[in-house]
Amino acid sequence: MENIASYIKEHKSRFIDELIDLLKIPSVSADSAYSQDVWNTAKAIEVKLQEAGCDLVEICETPGYPVVYAEKIIDPELPTVLVYGHYDVQPPDPVSLWTSDPFEPIIKKTELHPEGAIFARGACDDKGQMYMHVKAVEFMIKNNCLPCNVKFMIEGEEEVGSANLGWFVERNHDKLKNDVILISDTGMIANDTPSITTGLRGLSYVEVEVTGPNRDLHSGLYGGAVANPINILTKMIASLHDENNHITIPGFYDKVEELSIEERAAMAEAPFSLDAYKNALNIKDVYGEKGYSTNERNSIRPTLDVNGIWGGYIGEGAKTVIASKAHAKISMRLVPDQDWKEITTLFKKHFESLAPEAVTVKVTPHHGGQAYVTPIESIGYQAASKAYEKTFSKTPIPQRSGGSIPIVALFEKELESKTILMGFGLDSDAIHSPNEHFGIWNYLKGIETIPYFYKYFTELSK
Amino acid sequence: MENIASYIKEHKSRFIDELIDLLKIPSVSADSAYSQDVWNTAKAIEVKLQEAGCDLVEICETPGYPVVYAEKIIDPELPTVLVYGHYDVQPPDPVSLWTSDPFEPIIKKTELHPEGAIFARGACDDKGQMYMHVKAVEFMIKNNCLPCNVKFMIEGEEEVGSANLGWFVERNHDKLKNDVILISDTGMIANDTPSITTGLRGLSYVEVEVTGPNRDLHSGLYGGAVANPINILTKMIASLHDENNHITIPGFYDKVEELSIEERAAMAEAPFSLDAYKNALNIKDVYGEKGYSTNERNSIRPTLDVNGIWGGYIGEGAKTVIASKAHAKISMRLVPDQDWKEITTLFKKHFESLAPEAVTVKVTPHHGGQAYVTPIESIGYQAASKAYEKTFSKTPIPQRSGGSIPIVALFEKELESKTILMGFGLDSDAIHSPNEHFGIWNYLKGIETIPYFYKYFTELSK
Repeated sequence: MENIASYIKEHKSRFIDELIDLLKIPSVSADSAYSQDVWNTAKAIEVKLQEAGCDLVEICETPGYPVVYAEKIIDPELPTVLVYGHYDVQPPDPVSLWTSDPFEPIIKKTELHPEGAIFARGACDDKGQMYMHVKAVEFMIKNNCLPCNVKFMIEGEEEVGSANLGWFVERNHDKLKNDVILISDTGMIANDTPSITTGLRGLSYVEVEVTGPNRDLHSGLYGGAVANPINILTKMIASLHDENNHITIPGFYDKVEELSIEERAAMAEAPFSLDAYKNALNIKDVYGEKGYSTNERNSIRPTLDVNGIWGGYIGEGAKTVIASKAHAKISMRLVPDQDWKEITTLFKKHFESLAPEAVTVKVTPHHGGQAYVTPIESIGYQAASKAYEKTFSKTPIPQRSGGSIPIVALFEKELESKTILMGFGLDSDAIHSPNEHFGIWNYLKGIETIPYFYKYFTELSK
Repeated sequence: MENIASYIKEHKSRFIDELIDLLKIPSVSADSAYSQDVWNTAKAIEVKLQEAGCDLVEICETPGYPVVYAEKIIDPELPTVLVYGHYDVQPPDPVSLWTSDPFEPIIKKTELHPEGAIFARGACDDKGQMYMHVKAVEFMIKNNCLPCNVKFMIEGEEEVGSANLGWFVERNHDKLKNDVILISDTGMIANDTPSITTGLRGLSYVEVEVTGPNRDLHSGLYGGAVANPINILTKMIASLHDENNHITIPGFYDKVEELSIEERAAMAEAPFSLDAYKNALNIKDVYGEKGYSTNERNSIRPTLDVNGIWGGYIGEGAKTVIASKAHAKISMRLVPDQDWKEITTLFKKHFESLAPEAVTVKVTPHHGGQAYVTPIESIGYQAASKAYEKTFSKTPIPQRSGGSIPIVALFEKELESKTILMGFGLDSDAIHSPNEHFGIWNYLKGIETIPYFYKYFTELSK
């Protein structure tokens, strides 16, 4: 196990080249135009897992994109780690804001990544972080130091709500049987401040459509006399927050877990500079729910954000039109004890009630998932914490993330095991944004740290 | 003059074919991709005016698209009619809602047009209505019954706010000297209810941009902690109307002309069925400013409509992103005594003041124009009224339109003459909408009616 650092040194350029090859395939699951690329990425992962030394590697079909499954069972009596990751990526839009082609990876130095970072869609989320596990397992197999069994479940629909992963998991309880689930699809505070994500927010994602007149109208002849679907939509969306930025959907907060003063005080100790935060985003001020700090607003509090809005004439120049329809994509981040299906129903009921007689409203749920919390007493967390201590020489800080990995709650329900979230990316890596990147130092540090998790988890399991 | 009907009968199919040829050229002035087509349309109009028998025809360059000028001066002592029209058209978007290609004209019968209507972008607004004048003048010249002088000024930027027409008019006072300006770019109530537009609304068209963080962000990691530009934009736009649908911009109504009870009572006599109106648009209810009727809301009252809105991810599927920017195109229809430049300034000042510290706002004025009223006592109006009586056997109803032809107020200021708006289209002709069309009966009726305007105007001018 101790020769992992030298193994990385020896194979560094290959590790980077292999990741770059994966990043060149535009596996955008949200856009059917890329469907063949998503499949090709699955096939590429299959090959890499075989090369890493897994015994059994298969592409498991689902009603949607396939799950790549692999395993290396050294002794049924030993514990089994199930690695989850995803090979699909977010759409690159808006492409015009990328400084390089999202699917032509390049390496550039940045202030936070002086050793260079790989710029490409999926570099961090999640191809880069997923591939760290493939390389860590390659090391342990090739060096005969894999201390337990390992299974891989790499899916291709995470960025569209893991539409069919539940279907797959429900049908493969035995195949996926494990003692702990290991995922790298989150971040850490900083390269000198490792952290482990202990909480995830849930998600409810909906699309709304407001319809007024049966055709686009001339705003001169009809303006002022008929309901303008865009104006109505803005009124409806605006009313979803009150003057304190509380969400106004009746019942929305009923089940929200309220943290104790002690817990909030502990959170407040995580290093955070509001000025640095504002400077990084070039904003004059933060904005959010009254009575909560920035770190609380984006982790322990539920939110409602419009992710996209469109209607009417959005081309060059001017068109004096009243659109027949206006649309928005809206997502709500949820916290422990909020049920995403219940929240989706509350939203639908409330949003439809906001519409005046003059328009009709359609609310279409996209997908969702439950929030999740990892107990820091679990041996999984303890093993991860010791692994970071070994390679970072620092005890990682347990941290609630604002993000969502909907399937983590599903795993607990279906597979009855806890998930450990070992993230090596940084918030500034711009996942879901133009110019997404992943530090080479972080990539290699992940490969170095992961084997120790296997070591300590096996020891603590005895 | 009396043989106009038989002349139309004889040349009917040619009149229709010539218009169809013009409609095939996609002269969309708002989109630079069509720039060559806009120029080609100007050249086609030039040829048609020559063929009609004008003495002087020229394509006059401007900083933008050219103005086609033509004249037939039979006697400097006689009055001169200046015909204004435009050869550019609205963008066809959304193209998917057209039942036939917007630039491949087809003739179809409709309930309101049992003799058939030409379906194409620009069929009514304004190629069809403009070309009626070319054919009417052709008739008068070929039959030696033109009773006065005529000038044509056909522009190519009306749908983008006549950006350079002011420039052209200011530089050509003598060339454009006239006794009355004649325009067909409005509608009438119904084929059995002729009407003349006596009022037009003014217009202020602006584009707004709200900027939050300097890049698109992951809505999980940042959601709730930073201002979402789309949510903020919806709040800002929603606040522009109060619960009675009054516009909340300070000073917006200060100069609005208030009609007397008598004037409002007279307006209320125009035939109108609210049920038919709602059925035609397939809406359950109308929506607008409290205290005013539908016909008042779309004619004598100012309005504020969002004509387009966009931001974030608007593609297929879901993307959990907080956009860096959100945009909207907003137009305000103005009524007599509101100054469009002043209103634009009031809007800008107010809209910018609505933005919280957490975002920045940019307001870009697109274009605008003043409202206008034609006195029904003028000989121009009287001549038009008699012309309709002659060909429709009915006295036309004077009507305020909700639309805007910004340059009408400019003509009055620069050329010191009144404009007569003889419209032959119907509100249901879907101008600015998919499936725009123009009734063949209306097209030919216009050609038949226009010469009588020349006759009566010349007589009344003596």
